[in-house]
Amino acid sequence: MTLSAFQKNWIPKIENELQSTFERMDFDGSEELRTMLTYHMGWADDKGGGKRLRPLFSLLFTGALGTDPEKVMPGALAIELLHNFTLIHDDIEDKSEIRHGRSTLWQRWGIPLAINAGDALFSISQLTMLGLRETLNPDSAVKASLKFNQVCLHLTRGQHMDITFEKERAVTEADYLEMVRGKTAALIGFTAWLGGLAAERDDTILSTLYHFGENLGLAFQMQDDLLGIWGDPAVTGKSAASDLLSKKKTLPVLYGLVHSPEFRSMWQEEQASSEKLTRMTEVLKTCGAMESVQDQAKSFTEKAFTIVKGLFSHQNDYAIAIFELTESLLQRDF
Amino acid sequence: MTLSAFQKNWIPKIENELQSTFERMDFDGSEELRTMLTYHMGWADDKGGGKRLRPLFSLLFTGALGTDPEKVMPGALAIELLHNFTLIHDDIEDKSEIRHGRSTLWQRWGIPLAINAGDALFSISQLTMLGLRETLNPDSAVKASLKFNQVCLHLTRGQHMDITFEKERAVTEADYLEMVRGKTAALIGFTAWLGGLAAERDDTILSTLYHFGENLGLAFQMQDDLLGIWGDPAVTGKSAASDLLSKKKTLPVLYGLVHSPEFRSMWQEEQASSEKLTRMTEVLKTCGAMESVQDQAKSFTEKAFTIVKGLFSHQNDYAIAIFELTESLLQRDF
Repeated sequence: MTLSAFQKNWIPKIENELQSTFERMDFDGSEELRTMLTYHMGWADDKGGGKRLRPLFSLLFTGALGTDPEKVMPGALAIELLHNFTLIHDDIEDKSEIRHGRSTLWQRWGIPLAINAGDALFSISQLTMLGLRETLNPDSAVKASLKFNQVCLHLTRGQHMDITFEKERAVTEADYLEMVRGKTAALIGFTAWLGGLAAERDDTILSTLYHFGENLGLAFQMQDDLLGIWGDPAVTGKSAASDLLSKKKTLPVLYGLVHSPEFRSMWQEEQASSEKLTRMTEVLKTCGAMESVQDQAKSFTEKAFTIVKGLFSHQNDYAIAIFELTESLLQRDF
Repeated sequence: MTLSAFQKNWIPKIENELQSTFERMDFDGSEELRTMLTYHMGWADDKGGGKRLRPLFSLLFTGALGTDPEKVMPGALAIELLHNFTLIHDDIEDKSEIRHGRSTLWQRWGIPLAINAGDALFSISQLTMLGLRETLNPDSAVKASLKFNQVCLHLTRGQHMDITFEKERAVTEADYLEMVRGKTAALIGFTAWLGGLAAERDDTILSTLYHFGENLGLAFQMQDDLLGIWGDPAVTGKSAASDLLSKKKTLPVLYGLVHSPEFRSMWQEEQASSEKLTRMTEVLKTCGAMESVQDQAKSFTEKAFTIVKGLFSHQNDYAIAIFELTESLLQRDF
């Protein structure tokens, strides 16, 4: 089974299961709240739903460990719901008006209702995670839920750092890694950890799987950082050099601030014209920021697969699909 | 044991356990997040912590059912943490600048960090609830966590209604009850439900206990509504007629809008002077709003104690303390 066959088989299943999760929930008296969440999840107009990468990873990891992916399904869905909850709140916190080419939830319904809709989705993700009591058992459901909420707390620590970085002058690469470890990598780490739990691995292996996923997550974020500066707007769905425009202190920027006096002085100036943004992307590239971040993404990916060596069988179709998916995510076009 | 003896014994315990919950949590890399939560919980300056009524109720209900209150402690703490999470987000949604005489979290740290701190507290409350796996067992922890998150979802439905009521013209008493049932009563219902779970009661009794608590919660909210209009500022810590000033559609207001043309026309005018506010409280009282709401609060309380009749022994000290606590909450001075 190739990656595309796997996706063809599982993505509709994930989508159906996510939708029926919402149908089971009681929205009595506030149907508008359901409408908001349905819109955010991308079911109102078949847009905006995202790639469902996180549940896909969970299912693949479970399969690669020799266990039926169905067993991890409630957890995989809960991870996607949690991810979407964080997007709702992040968009408010970052003042992002557009996601997947549509108005964000707070733009459309206002901040108070959007904060509250995020909270509702958080609860729904918790309820969904506890569905593991049926596909696994109550002990595993408690264990998963505990780890899940430690990860949630880690996410908020990362998000706190991300928000405060905006105003902080001296953000180091180490700070950046610490932030991304919480904000992005922890949840990817958890997708692998959860696969291990479903496959009844012991705590040492669960911890290994977590670190594997965490390193992949760090690499994915670096790739996102590259796309945020050099990504093709037609592919990314964002404006050109969008992260430079919004002054996000991503890894290439941190590199440029240290290694290029020209970039540093452009960064410190106020408003940026589109000519200046183009010039900044060139300066960043010339000073070696792109190459350095690409190297780091590659090194984190290699580290991930070294950590996990021997845990997945190379003969296993799911394991092959994991390699394929990782490759495709790290080789997105500029 | 009287209520005051019970409070003297248990409030410091609740406070200590809440604080050590935070000490166990990992805030590595974002100590400011811990500072924010510590401030909100009232430990930074010994102010602002609130009365810890919800955990107190959980412990009392458990004791009244003949079980050691310690058994329910993780759940009782989780309820208080959840309640505090909702306060953080509610204050942003309602634009409230003051709570317990101090700046609210968003006023002090800004909206983005405050939303995120609320999310962190939500995760911490989930982790705390799962501590029931140790004082009870994993099955009960899963059951409690499921019910807890259904209640959380109910809270967000109530909050959604509350936010939209502001702009809606025709809010009925039935709408109001539906909103309060979610926003306030569900969590009080859960405190009683959880006591039943700790005391190993069956699902029918758990459901009875929930409805008992829900009715008490409705009565408490009505009392709060009365205080929001006629409460003594020195006692409530809020400005006089604060709910009239902020145009909250509480139960006395809904009554006045239907029964007093004079009140209705004053309500529809723009800005209110303090003389006008005083006049409005008088008009409301004259048209029977105060009496009607007092009657309803009384009737919900009586309904609550009828529902629960025979479940608590009258000889039991905890049961006596529950009656005492309810009485004291419903007879707060105006």
